Amino acid sequence: VIVYGRQPVAELLRAGRRRALRVWAIKDPGFAFTPATAEELTARAGTDAHQGIVAETESYHYVHAREMLGRDGLVLVLDEVQDPQNLGAICRTAEVAGALGVVIHDRRAAEVTPAVCKASAGAVEHLAIARVRNIADFLGEAKAAGSWCYGAAASGRMSCFEVDWPARVALVLGGEGKGIRPRVAKACDELVGLPMRGQLDSLNVSATAAVLTYLALQGEFRS
Amino acid sequence: VIVYGRQPVAELLRAGRRRALRVWAIKDPGFAFTPATAEELTARAGTDAHQGIVAETESYHYVHAREMLGRDGLVLVLDEVQDPQNLGAICRTAEVAGALGVVIHDRRAAEVTPAVCKASAGAVEHLAIARVRNIADFLGEAKAAGSWCYGAAASGRMSCFEVDWPARVALVLGGEGKGIRPRVAKACDELVGLPMRGQLDSLNVSATAAVLTYLALQGEFRS
Repeated sequence: VIVYGRQPVAELLRAGRRRALRVWAIKDPGFAFTPATAEELTARAGTDAHQGIVAETESYHYVHAREMLGRDGLVLVLDEVQDPQNLGAICRTAEVAGALGVVIHDRRAAEVTPAVCKASAGAVEHLAIARVRNIADFLGEAKAAGSWCYGAAASGRMSCFEVDWPARVALVLGGEGKGIRPRVAKACDELVGLPMRGQLDSLNVSATAAVLTYLALQGEFRS
Repeated sequence: VIVYGRQPVAELLRAGRRRALRVWAIKDPGFAFTPATAEELTARAGTDAHQGIVAETESYHYVHAREMLGRDGLVLVLDEVQDPQNLGAICRTAEVAGALGVVIHDRRAAEVTPAVCKASAGAVEHLAIARVRNIADFLGEAKAAGSWCYGAAASGRMSCFEVDWPARVALVLGGEGKGIRPRVAKACDELVGLPMRGQLDSLNVSATAAVLTYLALQGEFRS
């Protein structure tokens, strides 16, 4: 598979979790590469957003969702987030903030595609990402392992500022426009919302994720 | 000028701040429109991201930056944020959270282009946006009007969770990759950072904006 873009390729090599089989670049990137033209890179990347560098690498290594459980920290659970930009942005925030990982649905969600790698600025190379068949079942396992499950919902009865965030949290974010599916919402301990005072009635899911990730982890930052 | 996309056109009409001169659409949007093909819409919008609807409207109405001063609340100040996706995302968060407005540089920043309208989900139609010639001078005026000026910086000595956010805040965000320019940073009362615990050393500017916007306004949400 392909990874394109300066920072995504740099993080691929730095993380070393999946082998870089070959790198094509317009200019010398400071490591072994095959010279290529912009047109060749566009053909390989399938987009002209390659920033002059494309790598061929192994498939993305997902982890087992269970590895994120039974430990203090934050797991982000994405219920049908479809947009690669949003998935990438959420992964970048999760990695930078120090979340335990991100759980996605194994068929309905955006996978870790080259566009997701790019949108994450390469964060996916360092982050633990797991795919599960059933989000509600995973939340059941998380609860059994001591996590509190919060679902982000515009209609959430509880403001995110009223939550006394516990040490072990699974935070569920719903798909663009639709939010969390009812069956998944039912599997949450609590639905929380961000205060909204404008004319628009929804935040972007990656903005919601950023605010809630930092609020949920603020106790860890202090300790 | 052009506005494209379902929600951007809907918010344009709902806000009513600038006249919609004409609307072209593939399907009946429920108000006066001129039928058009997808190809015609792509030609008018300059992109195929039009979602079947394009409006022609007046130029974007900027407000005077001074109108945002002398009042309690949050003003977001963007020092050379260039990417339309980021500018749009920040405007959407600012509108939803109920910030007083957004200040941008009058030449070096991304303007409120059709792509920004789209990325903001139409939030720019409701939001106050001002352009200023000199960001540091604006911060001087803000301080004179009783605002505290915080600059978001990865190197900020103070964590965003340590700040006792005052009622009147100007929050400065720097451009992608480069951060706040030194002269603008010097005009801030304090530089604040988000805790970072991962391998990547920076958050996306729109994620940073979302977290800081909600933290800065949490006192208002509670009252």
